[in-house]
Amino acid sequence: MTRTEAGPEVHETQSHETDLPDDVSTPRDAATASAALQVDVAWLGEHLLGRWAEDRKVSRALVSRPEFWFQGDLSLAEHRERVLGQLHTLVSEDAVHRAFPTRFGGRDDHGGNIAAFEELVLADPSLQIKSGVQWGLFAAAILHLGTESHHERFLPGAMSLEIPGAFAMTETGHGSDVASVGTTATFDEQADEWVIHTPFRAAWKDYLGNAALHGRAAVVFAQLITKGVNYGVHAFYVPIRDAAGEFLPGVGGEDDGLKGGLNGIDNGRLHFDQVRVPRVNLLNRYGDVDEAGDYSSPISSPGRRFFTMLGTLVQGRVSLDGAATIASKLALHIAITYGTQRRQFTGGTSDEEVLLDYQRHQRRLLPRLAQTYAMSFAHEEFLDIFDRVFSGLEDTPSTREDLETIAAALKPLSTWGALDILQEAREACGGSGFLAVNRLTQLRADLDIYATFEGDNNVLLQLVAKRLLTDYARKFKGADAGAMAQYVAGQVGDAAVNRTGLRRLGQSIADFGSTARSVGFVRDEDSQRQLLTDRVHTAVAELAAKLRPASKLSPVDAAALFNRHQNDLILAARAHGELLQWEAFTRALAKVPEGDTKQVLTWLRDLFGLGLIEKDAAWYLVHGRLSAQRAAAITAYIDDRLLPRIREHALDLVGAFGLTPELVRAPIASGAEQERQDEARAYYAALRASGEAPVDEKSLRTR
Amino acid sequence: MTRTEAGPEVHETQSHETDLPDDVSTPRDAATASAALQVDVAWLGEHLLGRWAEDRKVSRALVSRPEFWFQGDLSLAEHRERVLGQLHTLVSEDAVHRAFPTRFGGRDDHGGNIAAFEELVLADPSLQIKSGVQWGLFAAAILHLGTESHHERFLPGAMSLEIPGAFAMTETGHGSDVASVGTTATFDEQADEWVIHTPFRAAWKDYLGNAALHGRAAVVFAQLITKGVNYGVHAFYVPIRDAAGEFLPGVGGEDDGLKGGLNGIDNGRLHFDQVRVPRVNLLNRYGDVDEAGDYSSPISSPGRRFFTMLGTLVQGRVSLDGAATIASKLALHIAITYGTQRRQFTGGTSDEEVLLDYQRHQRRLLPRLAQTYAMSFAHEEFLDIFDRVFSGLEDTPSTREDLETIAAALKPLSTWGALDILQEAREACGGSGFLAVNRLTQLRADLDIYATFEGDNNVLLQLVAKRLLTDYARKFKGADAGAMAQYVAGQVGDAAVNRTGLRRLGQSIADFGSTARSVGFVRDEDSQRQLLTDRVHTAVAELAAKLRPASKLSPVDAAALFNRHQNDLILAARAHGELLQWEAFTRALAKVPEGDTKQVLTWLRDLFGLGLIEKDAAWYLVHGRLSAQRAAAITAYIDDRLLPRIREHALDLVGAFGLTPELVRAPIASGAEQERQDEARAYYAALRASGEAPVDEKSLRTR
Repeated sequence: MTRTEAGPEVHETQSHETDLPDDVSTPRDAATASAALQVDVAWLGEHLLGRWAEDRKVSRALVSRPEFWFQGDLSLAEHRERVLGQLHTLVSEDAVHRAFPTRFGGRDDHGGNIAAFEELVLADPSLQIKSGVQWGLFAAAILHLGTESHHERFLPGAMSLEIPGAFAMTETGHGSDVASVGTTATFDEQADEWVIHTPFRAAWKDYLGNAALHGRAAVVFAQLITKGVNYGVHAFYVPIRDAAGEFLPGVGGEDDGLKGGLNGIDNGRLHFDQVRVPRVNLLNRYGDVDEAGDYSSPISSPGRRFFTMLGTLVQGRVSLDGAATIASKLALHIAITYGTQRRQFTGGTSDEEVLLDYQRHQRRLLPRLAQTYAMSFAHEEFLDIFDRVFSGLEDTPSTREDLETIAAALKPLSTWGALDILQEAREACGGSGFLAVNRLTQLRADLDIYATFEGDNNVLLQLVAKRLLTDYARKFKGADAGAMAQYVAGQVGDAAVNRTGLRRLGQSIADFGSTARSVGFVRDEDSQRQLLTDRVHTAVAELAAKLRPASKLSPVDAAALFNRHQNDLILAARAHGELLQWEAFTRALAKVPEGDTKQVLTWLRDLFGLGLIEKDAAWYLVHGRLSAQRAAAITAYIDDRLLPRIREHALDLVGAFGLTPELVRAPIASGAEQERQDEARAYYAALRASGEAPVDEKSLRTR
Repeated sequence: MTRTEAGPEVHETQSHETDLPDDVSTPRDAATASAALQVDVAWLGEHLLGRWAEDRKVSRALVSRPEFWFQGDLSLAEHRERVLGQLHTLVSEDAVHRAFPTRFGGRDDHGGNIAAFEELVLADPSLQIKSGVQWGLFAAAILHLGTESHHERFLPGAMSLEIPGAFAMTETGHGSDVASVGTTATFDEQADEWVIHTPFRAAWKDYLGNAALHGRAAVVFAQLITKGVNYGVHAFYVPIRDAAGEFLPGVGGEDDGLKGGLNGIDNGRLHFDQVRVPRVNLLNRYGDVDEAGDYSSPISSPGRRFFTMLGTLVQGRVSLDGAATIASKLALHIAITYGTQRRQFTGGTSDEEVLLDYQRHQRRLLPRLAQTYAMSFAHEEFLDIFDRVFSGLEDTPSTREDLETIAAALKPLSTWGALDILQEAREACGGSGFLAVNRLTQLRADLDIYATFEGDNNVLLQLVAKRLLTDYARKFKGADAGAMAQYVAGQVGDAAVNRTGLRRLGQSIADFGSTARSVGFVRDEDSQRQLLTDRVHTAVAELAAKLRPASKLSPVDAAALFNRHQNDLILAARAHGELLQWEAFTRALAKVPEGDTKQVLTWLRDLFGLGLIEKDAAWYLVHGRLSAQRAAAITAYIDDRLLPRIREHALDLVGAFGLTPELVRAPIASGAEQERQDEARAYYAALRASGEAPVDEKSLRTR
């Protein structure tokens, strides 16, 4: 990347301001200079839409139709019926079959499918998630875990929605720990049947979309037991209701009732009392049982087999990452539009100030705008890798493992990020933000569960940490702790980070010390990369050293040692995910032609990168990676340069999200606020001009 | 306070662990030693209930009746009607008149009134806020802003709910900036009437409880204009609907419709087209107009008059602070109870681990438990000060000013705190936490608006910052910047902080350097106080120096200079509020008799104090107040000592909140999870004992 920034360096002094040339020493000067630049909104919009722009546009056009829009005044039952009806419309519009085989009417298009699917969140997250249940989980499990005969027998009904289906994995007693589910599927050789059974209350399947009402069948995850041996969790196709909607014999359930959000989905519970299904209803791609009850699998390791089966479900995490990003775009479109029209309090003149001209308001919204761009670019790369794996183009155990690590790193960051962004947007719009008609509260309520379903975020980050440690250990197999320690400030940790696919860090960090001392250190791209990379490398190396004794301890003591560092493990994984986002942003930036747009996006990327460093400043300071002066300079650079510069282009940057009025639908972002402001200002101007304005008591006193 | 801690000191070394005696070097050892202590739950419960324990108990008994409980399956209209009915029941139970004069059937009991009122949040926040609208705003405005004749004419109807009323202050165009409302009240001498008028759309009153449906009258805030002079915002009693519920001539309005929460309240908009009310409907305690149209006021300064009028409304902020604290207690009761019963994943044995034994789970919930105790103790002091001012016991301009600063500091922290705590509790309960029946999502939705109503949190914190700067400037009137600077690391800032009433910091911080170097520095009470106090003092002194040039600048440039430091001003105010909380916790701790309970509460207070320092570690590091080693030692001390120790008493610490099953009403906190766990474990134990348990595939391979 070429440095295009024209501004002065930030020097390392306690009071940096006095060292800057006067002509650019204030936020106002930074803003004025920035205002001369012109962002190419149309070009940027296409850049953001990415590889599957067409699929996204088709999906956006579809959900621009009012019949898909969330309606707040519906009862639970009405909302559920409405969303079911919308799903049927999606089928008739051929909107949800892209990922299925062409011979069943699909297009074998995995990336395009997810891209189109994510956009449904703009209509109603319930619509998105209920179609995710039907086609992304229920039908996808048939496709990916089943074989030929299952596809023939079950896919058509699942695809057409003739058979709404539940994805019966989670149990009341086991959420993210799927390997421990209690439901059993015991093979009865005599009858050539599986006996699906729920042995106790905690083993009831729970939180399943389509289970309370609409589901006719379910893919049930259960411990496969044959000939007295438990081969672990496998998936079974189990009919649960008849055409009249009554439970089949042995099947029971409950309605989960009202939820914190997503109430267009009929989540519920299922339990099974010795329910029998034919042997061939085992979805047998990764494990099968023959008439004699003998088990076979193409994957001999039970652990690897389990993770392979679950790995086919990674698309849930891909699409949540994308949907969370889209919801964040919508939230910022609303809050930033409003923030540029709404006026409140005066600032030195009789005119009231526009909210986004307040530093605090910039601090609240603009770093989140930078974060949303990072989420968007990271998601695009994530989706690309997903497509290359699922299309078979690059489908190896190693790429699958990378894909899952990326999913486990990005989904927590974007889903938590969306909740935070929606909430800040809500508060930034004040009372208006709390009105349902302005959508922010409902979106936040709906997306709340994204943080804990499809893998609890804290559990996913531990998977990332485990992978980072494993890669680190592989690199140093046989090395002693002393030998390892010397690498900590060197390039050693690269192994832990590089293999995760999204990043291709070329340079060593051995030159860290000298770079760190250079003037202007805090803001160039290489320094950001070095700091963010070193944060991950060093944390992993430190944790590896602390956890090294575990191999010599009893299982209980080893578990206690790990537990003692659990929080740091999660923080390291989080930092890794943030690095992935930063690198994706930086790669996307490299593709932007030289010019104003690139300059503005560079500032935005810098705001994201320096914002991450500022957030973790204590870590960098404790580890001697930043001096106190440099840490302070980063904050000053954000406040005095980046925020005022980016504020000038905030409307264009949300404009590039391409959200039309039909997709936004929030009255406060419709221009109504501008009209109100204009009317009020015109009223006072006319009153002043008339000479009949009441005199202010204060001016009276000074007369 | 006597140091009762028996544990070892945390030494200042890079790898502190190896320096600690072996016998207490692990979290497990810390937990084991802590487990021997016994918290006196009953005593602690009373300590927490505080001065108005009886009023709180009466209120809790009342809302233990199912007729007051939130029901999730109601339509908007049904919920509104239900809450209106509950308000009538509150009247018939004599539950809402404590604050009114005895001659009208009240008790002149201001503190007890708020205490009882806050507890209503346990039934349904809509019930709390709608009764707050009726008695805390509408009727209270009549009481505090009106005089004798208003009390006689309007109080009985407002108190009895015969006249449901709206508090018409906020406008669509002006939220927290009340001084700029557009509604006018122009005096017509001929008719001896006020003409209430809405000049443009942005001046519509908005978000008013009781406005959409139930309100028969309103206290309307408008610019008082007489004889061509605007005397600023005053309050007027204006009938708005007839007995049949129809708007009176000239009055119009709209329903705000569905909101993100609090849907039991009929929020709406009002506008006035030249509506006339008698001259005597001006609530004239702080400003009056005679028949001739001449204005008079006991407060000559327009600014002080305005803030005095608004100051009578501080009880809204008091009660939100209390309600947010109670909701946080409920959230932690639910999540911690569940966290001690729920098991997930194994940790070295075949038994699954209890969630709260995971370090991350402790990190998520226990610091928030400490924060909730701090909120609770700070609120108790806040309420006490409120009562002393409103009872007339200590009602001076200075105590009123202090009260308002405390309100502006604590309300943001507790309302944001509650949202964060409710969300973390929700996520810590996974899918169960998302079910409406477990209450966390609904409480979060309802409390969302607490962050921006009764004063936007960011605006309130700026009021605090302004006060801190004003006090600082008063102290140094006439001093030059150089003379001021030398005080920064001294005791100078005291003036800025001490006068706010909650704190009585006695010692100088001149000895900071030496104390800072002592072993064990990071955790004793005095060190915490010094660090937290210095954080506020230094920030205020630094900001004062940076803002000093403002007095020589044009209004526009001065505003720009303030704006450039707006974020830091808010952060300083926030740190001040946290210090108030810490000091209240510490004073409450001093009242605890020596013994186990005091020991556990000391750890909890330390967790709160050290948690604040850890959160702001970058600031302390940049300012040289903490060394890198000490910052790291704080984190280690929290992880390895405080969390394991407090975890042992977590159930008792939430037990002391005294929330009975009728108040909790969340099935996951009812013991149902424990039953499910017990049943599942018994099932597997019986299966193993039977000899018929299926063999695990993995063990098969090793045989």
